[in-house]
Amino acid sequence: MRYTMDLKTLVERHDTPAGKAFDLVVQALILISLITFSLETLPNLSAETHHLLRIVEVVIVLLFTAEYVLRIAVADRKLSYILSFYGIIDLLAILPFYLALGIDMRSLRALRMLRLFRLFKLVRYNNAIERFARAFAIAREEIVVFAVVTVILLFFSGIGIYYFEHDAQPEVFSSIFHSLWWAMVTLTTVGYGDMVPITAGGRIFTFFMLLIGLGIVAVPAGLLASALNKARRDEDDEADE
Amino acid sequence: MRYTMDLKTLVERHDTPAGKAFDLVVQALILISLITFSLETLPNLSAETHHLLRIVEVVIVLLFTAEYVLRIAVADRKLSYILSFYGIIDLLAILPFYLALGIDMRSLRALRMLRLFRLFKLVRYNNAIERFARAFAIAREEIVVFAVVTVILLFFSGIGIYYFEHDAQPEVFSSIFHSLWWAMVTLTTVGYGDMVPITAGGRIFTFFMLLIGLGIVAVPAGLLASALNKARRDEDDEADE
Amino acid sequence: MRYTMDLKTLVERHDTPAGKAFDLVVQALILISLITFSLETLPNLSAETHHLLRIVEVVIVLLFTAEYVLRIAVADRKLSYILSFYGIIDLLAILPFYLALGIDMRSLRALRMLRLFRLFKLVRYNNAIERFARAFAIAREEIVVFAVVTVILLFFSGIGIYYFEHDAQPEVFSSIFHSLWWAMVTLTTVGYGDMVPITAGGRIFTFFMLLIGLGIVAVPAGLLASALNKARRDEDDEADE
Amino acid sequence: MRYTMDLKTLVERHDTPAGKAFDLVVQALILISLITFSLETLPNLSAETHHLLRIVEVVIVLLFTAEYVLRIAVADRKLSYILSFYGIIDLLAILPFYLALGIDMRSLRALRMLRLFRLFKLVRYNNAIERFARAFAIAREEIVVFAVVTVILLFFSGIGIYYFEHDAQPEVFSSIFHSLWWAMVTLTTVGYGDMVPITAGGRIFTFFMLLIGLGIVAVPAGLLASALNKARRDEDDEADE
Repeated sequence: MRYTMDLKTLVERHDTPAGKAFDLVVQALILISLITFSLETLPNLSAETHHLLRIVEVVIVLLFTAEYVLRIAVADRKLSYILSFYGIIDLLAILPFYLALGIDMRSLRALRMLRLFRLFKLVRYNNAIERFARAFAIAREEIVVFAVVTVILLFFSGIGIYYFEHDAQPEVFSSIFHSLWWAMVTLTTVGYGDMVPITAGGRIFTFFMLLIGLGIVAVPAGLLASALNKARRDEDDEADE
Repeated sequence: MRYTMDLKTLVERHDTPAGKAFDLVVQALILISLITFSLETLPNLSAETHHLLRIVEVVIVLLFTAEYVLRIAVADRKLSYILSFYGIIDLLAILPFYLALGIDMRSLRALRMLRLFRLFKLVRYNNAIERFARAFAIAREEIVVFAVVTVILLFFSGIGIYYFEHDAQPEVFSSIFHSLWWAMVTLTTVGYGDMVPITAGGRIFTFFMLLIGLGIVAVPAGLLASALNKARRDEDDEADE
Repeated sequence: MRYTMDLKTLVERHDTPAGKAFDLVVQALILISLITFSLETLPNLSAETHHLLRIVEVVIVLLFTAEYVLRIAVADRKLSYILSFYGIIDLLAILPFYLALGIDMRSLRALRMLRLFRLFKLVRYNNAIERFARAFAIAREEIVVFAVVTVILLFFSGIGIYYFEHDAQPEVFSSIFHSLWWAMVTLTTVGYGDMVPITAGGRIFTFFMLLIGLGIVAVPAGLLASALNKARRDEDDEADE
Repeated sequence: MRYTMDLKTLVERHDTPAGKAFDLVVQALILISLITFSLETLPNLSAETHHLLRIVEVVIVLLFTAEYVLRIAVADRKLSYILSFYGIIDLLAILPFYLALGIDMRSLRALRMLRLFRLFKLVRYNNAIERFARAFAIAREEIVVFAVVTVILLFFSGIGIYYFEHDAQPEVFSSIFHSLWWAMVTLTTVGYGDMVPITAGGRIFTFFMLLIGLGIVAVPAGLLASALNKARRDEDDEADE
């Protein structure tokens, strides 16, 4: 009983030295797993490197499995943990490995995408993320309005440029969906240069879309920044009282 | 009489369950019509798909026509609705279909551009857009000033780069109008890469234009964001009283 | 005497109907002169168009000359006007035309660049520009600091990428000055794509430069926007008193 | 004793005419050394130019050495200066020159990179940088949170686009590390165009990443700007008291 109690403290508390150490080890493992995962995609890897990365992979999955079992063991309400958001992420991070044993290689590859959920584990332990969440809640309504306006503007730009450029460049602006890609790449000011208007009409249309679009696309950043300031001020006000 | 009353509630009120359902159906129809419209532009569509999209098109236009007739029928001041902004948009969304029957294909195509006005119907039902409109009113004056400064800066950049690059790249920077396209693409930081200064003079000129231009082009976003904050504060103040 | 008085009101006052009309005519002339000037650079213009544009040019210069003489005539302190900023601009806008008569074509071309000063005449009559100027004064000190930091960052980026990419792409990153062009195009997020790092070292270096640089380059916009807000608040405070 | 006192004032004080002059001379020397350093990298330099630049280089290093010795001589706690941040930078700025005499050319080249530290000397004398530092301290916590979120988002985007585009463009999106370069270039809106998604899945994925990413990447700028405002207000409050 006493032993379980200590393990519980180790796994679930973040304010004790042991709990902090446990958190840091788990986060380090997540980072290592992400790096080995990325390294595996490099072309021209030698057989030995592949073998080494595979060993690291197996060790990490075993450690994650141990962590998952431990979390269930120490949880007061086990089913509640298993069905929680992080419980599901913890399971999804190890499940592909075990499922892969009996399935062919291609399905394995698609399943590995689920490993990305490990990224959220990294976020889990970050207390400072709370202020960000509060700021997001403050600006939520405006963000939705701007998102809708932005999507409408993108759609409008895409349809407009299609009419201006389709006849001049049928291979490039071949449909409204291709034109939407252009609209998105242009209004976000990424500007790859893979699709560029060449007609006078298309360029003048782009000119006006950019004058309007620059303002709209950049607004969410300003909103979020000001909301974060407000969240900070609210904290200060609470601290003053 | 009683029946008309119910239809009126259905069409014109947005706070009753029936009114909300009607709004949602209309918005869904607008979205479907936009998607089928975009799908039609895809190259290499089979004859069956074309036929199917045509049927969806006809059904949607009939439904929009029914909606338009209904809105006139329930309106207290029918002419006032017909001549209102949304009355005209509602008509423009269906008119091209009926006009197209007697006209040749090319004019039809130009007329379909008017279908875009359906997008504004989507906006119509959004209450949250009001705050955005108020913020826009607050920052209107500064936006105009910045727009004028930006246009002058664009013009100045376009003329400047023409003098620096025209001799080195006569095919690329072939006139001040072509150079204006470069100025716009560069100062908005889109940077397609279709026109790039190569002379030392042109690059140094671009350097100074970018130092000045970055500030000016990005300002409207900051203005709008801060105005939205002000609109929000004003709402809070009204709520406090 | 009475007559001169009226002309003086016409030319120098902006709050009388006649003064406003005079201002509008001058601004329209400046716009027309800029447009004809741009049209002249278009390649493949017919001889008739060239002739027409030349006539418009001569008429505008004559009108500008009349305006210049008029301004001197009505000025209380004539030398003070001639030596003022706008007095010099007004002269520079017409001088190239008269000087060109006796000089060869190439020098004429360089002199035409001075026509750009006409743009400043457009700005002259804009009252709303004052608030912008006040906001600029408020944020002046920070803008200077940021400009210095940005230039240092640009220089640092340019030298760094030169060391990483010069050996791999000696033709592209051929000197620190070429690399500075890359640094400027990248840190302002224009990203033409004419110079792109390909080495792992150069890309990791770019990664860190962008993380730092994005913040620094975008700051002036935020500064100016907030300063404009402050200028607006100051106006409101003065109005309240 | 009296003489040393004067030298001390000259070197260490910035508020006397002599001290200011000394500072300006040192800054001018740093600028000259940076410019000659950059000029040396230009291809196709004549032998005479190389010789001239070499002479300027030697003279500047000798003057920097004199300055370094002088700073040690006038310092009250000599070891404290030598081991200080600027003491080390001052040494690193001249050391490569002396070390280069006995070592082969390639190592010399790597060592010259250290010359960049001279840039920090430029910053040293700038009083206005203090406010910037204070603003940075205010927004530090949020900047860290956003940096972490941005890096996670970059990683997530890189892995995602790898799965969407690797099969379609194995040469371009050849590993997750190559995809990370794409993610960084795209989410910062630089958009070189060297790596562009071509699959429908990859483009839709990019669409959502850009909608989220634009907000996150632009936030630090807003944070820093608002923090700078706060630092300014704090200064005003202190001045009022």
